[in-house]
Amino acid sequence: MAFSFSLGARDPGSRARRGTLRTSRGTVETPVFMPVGTRATVTGIAPDELLALGASIILANTYHLLLRPGPDLFRRVGGIHTFMRWPGLVLTDSGGYQIFSLPHERTMSEDGARFRSYIDGRIHQLTPESSIEMQTAIGSDIMMVLDECIPATDLESAGRAAMERTHRWALRGLAARSNPEQALFAIVQGGLVPSLRQESARFLSQHPFDGFAIGGLAVGDTRTQREEMTAFAADLLPAAAPRYLMGVGTPPDLLVAIGCGVDMFDCVIPTRLAWQGTAFTSTGRVRLTRGAHQTSDESLDKACSCSTCRTYTRAYLHHLVKSSEPLGPQLLTVHNFHYYLDLMAQARAAIEAGVYAAFAKQKLYEMDRHEHGEARA
Amino acid sequence: MAFSFSLGARDPGSRARRGTLRTSRGTVETPVFMPVGTRATVTGIAPDELLALGASIILANTYHLLLRPGPDLFRRVGGIHTFMRWPGLVLTDSGGYQIFSLPHERTMSEDGARFRSYIDGRIHQLTPESSIEMQTAIGSDIMMVLDECIPATDLESAGRAAMERTHRWALRGLAARSNPEQALFAIVQGGLVPSLRQESARFLSQHPFDGFAIGGLAVGDTRTQREEMTAFAADLLPAAAPRYLMGVGTPPDLLVAIGCGVDMFDCVIPTRLAWQGTAFTSTGRVRLTRGAHQTSDESLDKACSCSTCRTYTRAYLHHLVKSSEPLGPQLLTVHNFHYYLDLMAQARAAIEAGVYAAFAKQKLYEMDRHEHGEARA
Repeated sequence: MAFSFSLGARDPGSRARRGTLRTSRGTVETPVFMPVGTRATVTGIAPDELLALGASIILANTYHLLLRPGPDLFRRVGGIHTFMRWPGLVLTDSGGYQIFSLPHERTMSEDGARFRSYIDGRIHQLTPESSIEMQTAIGSDIMMVLDECIPATDLESAGRAAMERTHRWALRGLAARSNPEQALFAIVQGGLVPSLRQESARFLSQHPFDGFAIGGLAVGDTRTQREEMTAFAADLLPAAAPRYLMGVGTPPDLLVAIGCGVDMFDCVIPTRLAWQGTAFTSTGRVRLTRGAHQTSDESLDKACSCSTCRTYTRAYLHHLVKSSEPLGPQLLTVHNFHYYLDLMAQARAAIEAGVYAAFAKQKLYEMDRHEHGEARA
Repeated sequence: MAFSFSLGARDPGSRARRGTLRTSRGTVETPVFMPVGTRATVTGIAPDELLALGASIILANTYHLLLRPGPDLFRRVGGIHTFMRWPGLVLTDSGGYQIFSLPHERTMSEDGARFRSYIDGRIHQLTPESSIEMQTAIGSDIMMVLDECIPATDLESAGRAAMERTHRWALRGLAARSNPEQALFAIVQGGLVPSLRQESARFLSQHPFDGFAIGGLAVGDTRTQREEMTAFAADLLPAAAPRYLMGVGTPPDLLVAIGCGVDMFDCVIPTRLAWQGTAFTSTGRVRLTRGAHQTSDESLDKACSCSTCRTYTRAYLHHLVKSSEPLGPQLLTVHNFHYYLDLMAQARAAIEAGVYAAFAKQKLYEMDRHEHGEARA
């Protein structure tokens, strides 16, 4: 099979680890952050810019791509990489999160979900098999099984039922897989209940999945609950396979999870905050809408080497954001991805050097201090 | 004085002419198209991208920049070029068009316009003198006098009153100018009435303006009316000064006006249509929203060498536009500017070669044929 994962250095002071994902398309160094390209585009940034920023793998979404442009188009053009001109890797989420969280008319059963398209009103079916079929058409390098994703804080009885269905669906997904070039990851559920997580990890790791995701976090839980469960769940997963924490998170979330042995992340925060006018910087979050930046000749982040920081002042970025001009979010998107991808590169280097625990502690201290300082400002 | 204009080749078969605008900041080859950067940003495209596409001068708007970021900021940072990191030239419109066309509370008098800011509700005054003062703060290379801009189709009596006020205001603008490095253009008014245009051109050309604009067209007039008045008005202007047709226009508009001896143009069409999903191509306008493009593997324009056409398919651009993803308009903006700027480069080369009349005739024939063909499709 084309997909493989090899472990590299381990950090002596934490559970952090280096790794390499290998596919016939290329390799990805882990820990890695995946920019979110839900609809086969990462909002407001071209693939070649993402590549230049150091992105090696992006996430796309099966639910949204099923509705538009649909599987036939992907089959016709030969997959998402050709369609969007992205030379790196693609991981596709299965649509599980969307069918449970989006407020469109839907009915759930053991078979899967039936729902009405928000685009043309047509009825669609998303089952464990049809999700894999769609992901096969998309041609992603890593596919995810369809899961039943419920709020982390739901009752244990609901959590057990969702977990057990997720297990049955995972096996149906495994059976439905047709292209051995495409890796398939399972998703550990179980909410905030340790015994359920344990049972889920034990069950799924008995089957030949190429990687394991921790699902159902960052869905109503607190930061402390999330961190505790991430540490607990990561430890339950096979050491030799990649571990992916779905939908997480902020820079501190990433640093903590890497220290727990997580290898892969995705989150809409860098783009979403950019379009809200907020940047991540070495001195904390900067909200460009604030009047304090109106006359600032300073760059967004003096410690940053991205093209936005090398070129523009905070005053100009403030002006763009206040004027609702798209160039503002575009420039902040470049910066935020530079921040995220650079943070991951620093994390990988710290693991290689065997100093990740100290590195993360220092970074988290700085981030907490900045967030705290900003809260007072 | 820093500003100068020198004429180059003339086309033997039309009134088209080559020229060079010279300022201490740089030179601009005419005929030239100026991308519109109303709020010190050309929507959705960074200055370095515009420069790479061949733009040499952009237009910004005094009315909008007066309200935000305001004159103090421009004085503080040393002008618009530094503020937005644009190394080319900048022409500032005076705000005349906005105060007459925008529906905000305003009162007009011989002194100027009083109006309420749409941003913070504060009362502002725009007079011939304060417009020049603001444009001096902005630091544009070419300033425009404040004019009274009324619909081209208004009654002759209203046209005369507006023209006469425009003349008085032009002289007040000339007297208010303080920085000899900044050129100042007058604006010929007179609607669709030849005798008024004649009178306006005669009056204004007696005064030491650096260039002359034809105002009040593309404001309610038909294409035929606009073309006839452009030809008539351009002929009335001093041959040795640059001639600028304000707010015009489509590619055919530009070709016709160049043939009348017009040197400079600005228009929001390339960006506005891009954000509506429409592209200018060698085979006519392409509306990417149309279902016909849904499965097209072709590039947007086979004859185009821009990065959008070199990289993406119509199917992908269709998907982006239908998904309301900003990357769609961003990529179409790059293409549309490439189209406009390339058309101007072709026009300049045709004038140099003494074949502009034939070049324009052929191009207009093709454009008309495509528009006609598309209308039937």
